[in-house]
Amino acid sequence: MPYTAPVSEMRFLMDHVLDAGRLAGTERFAEATPETIDAILSEAARLSEDVLEPLRRAGDLDPARIENGVVRTTAGFAEAYGRIAEGGWLGIAADPEYGGMGLPQTLSSCVDEAMAAANLALSLCPLLTRGAIEALRHHGSDSIRAAYLPRLISGEWTGTMNLTEPQAGSDVGAIRTRAEPKADGTWAVTGQKIYISWGDHDVAENVCHLVLARLPDAAEGTRGISLFLVPKFIPDGDGRPGVANGVRAISLEHKTGLHGSPTCVMDYAAATGWLVGGEHKGMAAMFTMMNNARLGVGVQGVSQADAALQAAIRFATDRRQGRTARADEPAIIGHADVRRMLGRMTALTATARAICLDCALSIDMSEATGDAAWRARAGFLTPIAKSFGTDVGCEVAELAVQVHGGMGYVEETGVAQYYRDVRVTAIYEGTNGIQAMDMVGRKLMDGGVVARALLAEVADIARAGGDLGADLERAVSRVGEVTEWMVGADMEDRFAGATSYLRAFALVLGGHYLLKGALADATRMPLAAFHIRRILPETIGLCDAAREGAEPLQALDFGS
Amino acid sequence: MPYTAPVSEMRFLMDHVLDAGRLAGTERFAEATPETIDAILSEAARLSEDVLEPLRRAGDLDPARIENGVVRTTAGFAEAYGRIAEGGWLGIAADPEYGGMGLPQTLSSCVDEAMAAANLALSLCPLLTRGAIEALRHHGSDSIRAAYLPRLISGEWTGTMNLTEPQAGSDVGAIRTRAEPKADGTWAVTGQKIYISWGDHDVAENVCHLVLARLPDAAEGTRGISLFLVPKFIPDGDGRPGVANGVRAISLEHKTGLHGSPTCVMDYAAATGWLVGGEHKGMAAMFTMMNNARLGVGVQGVSQADAALQAAIRFATDRRQGRTARADEPAIIGHADVRRMLGRMTALTATARAICLDCALSIDMSEATGDAAWRARAGFLTPIAKSFGTDVGCEVAELAVQVHGGMGYVEETGVAQYYRDVRVTAIYEGTNGIQAMDMVGRKLMDGGVVARALLAEVADIARAGGDLGADLERAVSRVGEVTEWMVGADMEDRFAGATSYLRAFALVLGGHYLLKGALADATRMPLAAFHIRRILPETIGLCDAAREGAEPLQALDFGS
Repeated sequence: MPYTAPVSEMRFLMDHVLDAGRLAGTERFAEATPETIDAILSEAARLSEDVLEPLRRAGDLDPARIENGVVRTTAGFAEAYGRIAEGGWLGIAADPEYGGMGLPQTLSSCVDEAMAAANLALSLCPLLTRGAIEALRHHGSDSIRAAYLPRLISGEWTGTMNLTEPQAGSDVGAIRTRAEPKADGTWAVTGQKIYISWGDHDVAENVCHLVLARLPDAAEGTRGISLFLVPKFIPDGDGRPGVANGVRAISLEHKTGLHGSPTCVMDYAAATGWLVGGEHKGMAAMFTMMNNARLGVGVQGVSQADAALQAAIRFATDRRQGRTARADEPAIIGHADVRRMLGRMTALTATARAICLDCALSIDMSEATGDAAWRARAGFLTPIAKSFGTDVGCEVAELAVQVHGGMGYVEETGVAQYYRDVRVTAIYEGTNGIQAMDMVGRKLMDGGVVARALLAEVADIARAGGDLGADLERAVSRVGEVTEWMVGADMEDRFAGATSYLRAFALVLGGHYLLKGALADATRMPLAAFHIRRILPETIGLCDAAREGAEPLQALDFGS
Repeated sequence: MPYTAPVSEMRFLMDHVLDAGRLAGTERFAEATPETIDAILSEAARLSEDVLEPLRRAGDLDPARIENGVVRTTAGFAEAYGRIAEGGWLGIAADPEYGGMGLPQTLSSCVDEAMAAANLALSLCPLLTRGAIEALRHHGSDSIRAAYLPRLISGEWTGTMNLTEPQAGSDVGAIRTRAEPKADGTWAVTGQKIYISWGDHDVAENVCHLVLARLPDAAEGTRGISLFLVPKFIPDGDGRPGVANGVRAISLEHKTGLHGSPTCVMDYAAATGWLVGGEHKGMAAMFTMMNNARLGVGVQGVSQADAALQAAIRFATDRRQGRTARADEPAIIGHADVRRMLGRMTALTATARAICLDCALSIDMSEATGDAAWRARAGFLTPIAKSFGTDVGCEVAELAVQVHGGMGYVEETGVAQYYRDVRVTAIYEGTNGIQAMDMVGRKLMDGGVVARALLAEVADIARAGGDLGADLERAVSRVGEVTEWMVGADMEDRFAGATSYLRAFALVLGGHYLLKGALADATRMPLAAFHIRRILPETIGLCDAAREGAEPLQALDFGS
């Protein structure tokens, strides 16, 4: 099944909607010139389309498996991973001091989307490695950085995030894995972690686990958590993988999708670990990884949405059933209800992509300028990017199945794999409910400053947008009112409306991006009109629901 | 995983919401006394919980397979099917003249829900058999009825519906299977059919295929279609399965879910068939099967919603993560966002069930009274029952996965199976888009008479409902306005808003059923309030979208 990376769409978004040219104007990202961006995107497209996509179904049909305590991945995955590593793709946004290219996340997020669309299961390995790179860059000691970053950035070694334990999922503070100090300054890490993506594999020579654990004197909850680096093989004097460490994958999960990605139960038996980021400072280090990963998972959602949308458009263009109202279009893409589905899929995917890239741009601008406003903007957009991006991934993949009719339910068609694969993205790296709570909790702690600033940006565009703009402005007011309500509400009442508020906010942002794009290119006006007239009215119901408060929810009786 | 058939909920709905006691007041259904209803429901619950549910995962893990041209079903399925047949469950709504119990569909739909919730894959076999029974009862000749109905009603033989061909899915008129007359008055049927559920199997001794085909002189399109009965084994002089007919399953589909149900490609090679319902009258006979099956599929959606909801409540009641705002509830069911999901699941499931049973009741009352108004009501509710019931099935199953977090994506937990199994229900028996087109097309051909009558019923309840009732009344007005718009609009404009209109109509009906229930039992008021305050506002956006017309959809460019 062909997949084409949406390079020109990404360029349009950067150039005409997000004004990403600002990046090249900063000293930090001076190298992110239009030529460089074009070169990177076209290379990423080629790798994704030619190398990764052809292995997508293989990952589904020939899943990773565990044999004699070692994980064997899908045939072809190791070679494809080698191509990712050789191409320098692990390091495009990484620190040049350790071999990275230092390019902005705005660009690397586009690369991530293409690779994930082509092969979500395999792309998860580099994504997690990048999280490990960021955590070590910000929180690792000099010697750890020197020993590990070049190997991770080159892709010779990969990284993992080890947070979850059976009793500690969303509640990270409940972890029990322990770290005991050893005489040589290292630590002995003991415990069991679950849901560890790419926890073991055969695509690279070493796996560097970043593991949350407790010191013997640690406080209860999240304050007593420290982060450790635990390599599968301990580097020898030459920095090569040396003796095996006390860590192994003891089983793999049987999942609904994402079969090509080994999801491991990891056992740590007094494994040697190095402290990263100070005793009891694990949560801060973890959030470095997590924030990076949250945006990355939002992008995964977008990737599956776009790939599924492409498949649906191809099918609807070829398939003939019944007489359409259009003489020039005998295929089912001429039917109004099919166009409704494709229109919704297109608008939601475009909105989710723009939110993710706006988030990435804010991270980049924050890094380039040190401006706290950019940093806060990135922080506010991160839970929206993760939650809305993955909700859209699920919804669009489901609609893509529907467009295919019976053939969508037959696995050979390939579209159902998107539907199964993407489902986990709404769960991992913090469920979408947790994201919404983060948005109305932590991210509104500023009293609504960032939210208001974002809505003001939307209102500015809306005022230039004629009748459609007037509709968008009304939606902005509506979401603005809920924002003020949220800021003044008890936390539990905020939580009760969090998911509805997040979605309403995202849809309004979509109105902004799509209208701005349409003002720059009139051929895009019908899509902006579709979004504003057919999707944005949903914000009325969402805003009503967002302000209902917790009491009505607590009054429900589930007979439990 | 335990499943408990919601018997008391069904009884409450019949007694206090739908006034199903009316049935026993008719001559036709005089036997449907409260005692009989209770007895049937408790027996159905026992069979579902004890016999069918324990095989649900087995169907998923050990799918039907084809061996030497014969389909072998999941171990245990044949015995369980035998229990269904022996219990007389095939015939509870069937004609007593042929061994049925003649009970109302209102009751048999409850039975269907319980069996489908427990084991959707297996329950599909009796459901299709019932469609065949109805088609033969209404359109079969006396000799066919005498030969086949007793065997089908007893469950000794099963039935199938053979409509789809590769080029003829939603467009049934495009079928190419041919029937040539033979000297003895039978027909030689030749062609290939796809997506034939339970097209072959080893759970009963004969399979009676109802096959759409064309006579040599047939007109193009749906007017040239005839229906044939083609048994796997031709009955001998004693009415026992005799010589093998020229029909066989040549392959099985690999589906996303519903693995326990064999989905066959059927090959007919001059197979002997008997005409059912007159030459070129196949569509009318098919609609008898289809309408029955459409309600049945809506009930399947409800069944998966309810089973997934039960699983989610159990999980949320056991699982502890983080501190909830409720001192008395340490499990995650105390968290506001979890309660939001469970509340939505509960309200949507209850709404969908009530719509299906109201549809069933209308069918029964139509049959009992011969009143055209009941018949039209049933016709109007059928596409809503199918489409909304299955959309709710998909949405609730997806939310159930979300409530489970990471464990929801691990197949051992069992909840992901609902998510995969239910997905096809939104597609088969006419996609949900086709249902919506049926509603705004054929079912509004009366100029809106039935729609207005249904909305008036809702308004009556709303006026008795205080503040909540006032909110419901506003939603009724909104949907009433769209109804008038629809009646006056071009068909293509109706189609453009059909899906949104159907959903808005269903949500308003839900307000009716839930509020009526709450007025009868005050403990149900919080759920009615949740539906009216948090879900019904969605009708604003839906009604806006419903009236946008086709032009904006045709203006979209999908780059195809």
